Parts: sequence; C-alpha cells; structure tokens
Amino acid sequence: MSEERNEPGTGGASGAQTESETISLLMKHTSVRQFQDRPVSEEQLAAIIGAGQMASTSSNVQAYSVIAVTEPALKSQLAELSGKQAYIEQCPVFLVWCADLYRLREASAPHLQGADSYEDTTENLIVATVDVALAAQNAAVAAESLGLGIVYIGGVRNQIAELSELLGLPELVYPVFGMCLGYPAGVNGLRPRLPLQAVLHHNGYNAEAAVQQAEVYDGISQDYMRKRTGGQNDTPWSAMMAHRLSQPARMQMKDFLLGKGFMQR
Amino acid sequence: MSEERNEPGTGGASGAQTESETISLLMKHTSVRQFQDRPVSEEQLAAIIGAGQMASTSSNVQAYSVIAVTEPALKSQLAELSGKQAYIEQCPVFLVWCADLYRLREASAPHLQGADSYEDTTENLIVATVDVALAAQNAAVAAESLGLGIVYIGGVRNQIAELSELLGLPELVYPVFGMCLGYPAGVNGLRPRLPLQAVLHHNGYNAEAAVQQAEVYDGISQDYMRKRTGGQNDTPWSAMMAHRLSQPARMQMKDFLLGKGFMQR
Repeated sequence: MSEERNEPGTGGASGAQTESETISLLMKHTSVRQFQDRPVSEEQLAAIIGAGQMASTSSNVQAYSVIAVTEPALKSQLAELSGKQAYIEQCPVFLVWCADLYRLREASAPHLQGADSYEDTTENLIVATVDVALAAQNAAVAAESLGLGIVYIGGVRNQIAELSELLGLPELVYPVFGMCLGYPAGVNGLRPRLPLQAVLHHNGYNAEAAVQQAEVYDGISQDYMRKRTGGQNDTPWSAMMAHRLSQPARMQMKDFLLGKGFMQR
Repeated sequence: MSEERNEPGTGGASGAQTESETISLLMKHTSVRQFQDRPVSEEQLAAIIGAGQMASTSSNVQAYSVIAVTEPALKSQLAELSGKQAYIEQCPVFLVWCADLYRLREASAPHLQGADSYEDTTENLIVATVDVALAAQNAAVAAESLGLGIVYIGGVRNQIAELSELLGLPELVYPVFGMCLGYPAGVNGLRPRLPLQAVLHHNGYNAEAAVQQAEVYDGISQDYMRKRTGGQNDTPWSAMMAHRLSQPARMQMKDFLLGKGFMQR
C-alpha cells in the first residue's frame, strides 16, 4: 500500500480534490421559469446538443432524438398540450427530448434479413429512456455553463398522443420530457435536497435510514417553504408527495407506449 | 426587436458564447475501464453524489437511491452477476443507481390514510427512471471534473432479481445501471457520435434525415473502428446495431418490474 493510499471512509486527511468549477456550477442549479427576450443562436444550440451527445450511451445505441421548437405557433400549441405553462411559450427554444428506437430499427433493418428483432422489449424501453436522460442532462449542464437556464417539462406527457402527432413522432419514439432553454430573467433560490444519507447507501439498501432521513427532510423542506412563501406555506415534503401520489396522473402512459411499439415483451 | 437580437439559424455573427470549461470537460468524456489502485475518499463520494442530487427531479420526488459498494467480496459477487467485467472488481467504488419509489411511498403513507396511491403506474416508472439517470449523469460529470473516470454498467440488469436480492432492494426499487468510479489508468480515444442532424430535429421529427444521417455515421464509425483495431474490424454501426437487436437480451425485465410493483397500470 503506497503512502498516497487512503481508505474510503477516512478520506479527511487525504487531500484528494473535492471541488471544481464544474461542481460549483452543478451545485448552483435551479429551474428557470422566466426568460429574457433574447434568442439562443444556432451555434449555441449545436454546442449544447453536441455536449449532450457525448454522454454515455448503452452499447452506442444513441437511442434518442431531440426536437428544437422555435416556431411561435407550434410552441403555443405545445404549451397548450403541456399544462399551459407560460414559460414554454416565452422561452426562445423549447426542446422535446424523445426516446428513439425508430432510427435504430430503420438503420438495422437492411442487415437483419427478416430475423427477429428485439427493439420492442421492456429492456430497450429502459435503455432508450436512460439514453435520452443522460444526453439531456449533459445538455442542461452545458447550457448552464453558457449562462443559459433550463427547466424540465414533464407536461409533454400530459397529452402525449396529441403532442406526438403534432411533432410527427413515428413508431418507437416517445417524448420523455421537454426542456425550456433561454437566458434567465431572474434566478430562484436553491431548493434543498434530501439529506445525502437518504439517497446514498453503503454496500446494501438501508430502508430504515432512507425513511428516517426523509423525516429529517420534512423539517428542512418546511423551513424552505416558510422562507419562500413568507410564512404562508409550511407543508412538509412527505405531505406534498402524498398529495401527488393520491392523484391519478398520465394514466394513459402504459397504453400509449404499447401502442407505439414499446415493451411488447 | 433590439439590436442584440439574433434569430436562431443565423447565429454566426451574434458573438454569443458557445464555449466553456465545463463544455470542454463534457466533450472529452470517454468510458474508463481500467482503474488505478487508488481509493476514492468518502468526501469525494459525498461531493459527487451531492452534485448528482442537484440535478432536476420531477416535482421534487427525488425518486432514486444509489448504493456505493466498496466491500471487495460484495463487489466480486456483483461483478459475477453483471457480466463478469473485471473493472467492476477493480474499481474502488462500484455505484448501483436505483429507481426508488419505495422511500416516496413510505414517506407518504402516513398522510394518505388509506386513500388510493398511484406510485405503481407506468408514468411513475418513467419518472423514477428519468430521475435516477439525471442524478447519475450529474454525478458522472462531477467525478470527471475531479480527474476521476466512470463507466456505466447496464450489466446490473443481466441477473436483476439476484442482484436486487444481494443488495436488499425492497419493493418499488430497481437497479437501473451500475457505475464504476475511480482514477483512470489510461484513457481511451474519443468515440465519434451520430452526426448532429441525426438526433437534432427542428419543429418536427424528420425521419428521412434521421435515417440518412445514420448512413453517414456508418462511414464515420467504420473509420473509427479501423483505426481502433489496426484495420482488423470495420463493421459499420448499423451492422453492429442489427447484431445487438437480433439477440434477445434481459427478457425478464417486464416480469421483474411487474413483480417489484412497477407499472401495474
């Protein structure tokens, strides 16, 4: 064992680097829901999506596509279908990130010569969904490093069939989330996350710690809500989550995905 | 329209920033499959996972957990279950990233008072899968900014039931991917990605361009393979993808997820 060596768990004295400019950027992330009337250039978009493409991808399948929507009328229609959030109309570029097994199947078809093909498995739904999320998060980080801001929009799944038709999404493609992109007009305060011990386990899942730390977070989230609302709201996280889970949401997802050719087996 | 304004598509003259230290870091990403015999400190791990936690999360559900595996015997068992890849044993920390709706349900339960609860929908499977991928990608970027390297391991889904049992994963938790973490011993060359036009569409899905650009990529990937294998291999991307799609892989995923309480409806 060399002198440089330092066991995990005793890292304090190691002097190993724990800070970087990039980590500082990541730690400052907040969602942006108000945008300046200032465009994003095509070069910026290319740099951002290009950085997204450098994220890891399962066996190089690159099973995603992203639709950059800049036409105001189309943006309005998408906003209408995605929960009528004003910032979708306001942002200069609305990105619709899609899991895409269509391109993969089409590219592969000439080599398959009629052999069975497994793009339609639940495994490949997961592969494509992870692929698009990794690329999108890289793109989000790239955008923020250029002084731009983003917010993810799960609302693209509200009326997923209508939205997919509007964008001409073929079989084996589904919109996973949207992303507003633009220069921020104002910055929100940081929202505290669950304590590290709620999400980070060592050598096995610790159910007790996970649930106990979620209780600790209730207090943290109450303080945050009180501050943010000037004392008007102090609902703890667990109560907000219970409210969310008690509402049926996007119940059409299973049938929609099956109808698009995903997770047939 | 102010003078500063510049329409997307004509961005060249805008002078808008397209480069940053963080983008340079993202553009240098390659998977690392050989690690130095040098540990990752607990402080580094906390910084990396903490940066992961700052990624966006759907309605603040934070529906993920990560298991840091450092015990050599456990790491060996996981390597055995994940395709026997030597780097899983070799890396100082093996992270198993899990979609986690269990903590959410447990935290919510006291507020629900027996009301129906929708954590078991296909929608929430997608939410949790996206949540864990966004956090993991932030963590990957954070790690690389500290001079560490990573590789994603889809192989944790090879024998997903056995691996889940080994880690004590409860209901509504599934391992989405692993991630080897450590100091790189050697760096791979950059692997070229699909042309931007294959993945970036404007104001609607362009199926023709997507497929055509995949053909362009065949040539690019052949050049890359030739260089990497000293002329031994020049299989185009589409042929590799066809081979991949023609193999049944992880066919147990649907039943496993159903058995864990996911996508019941």
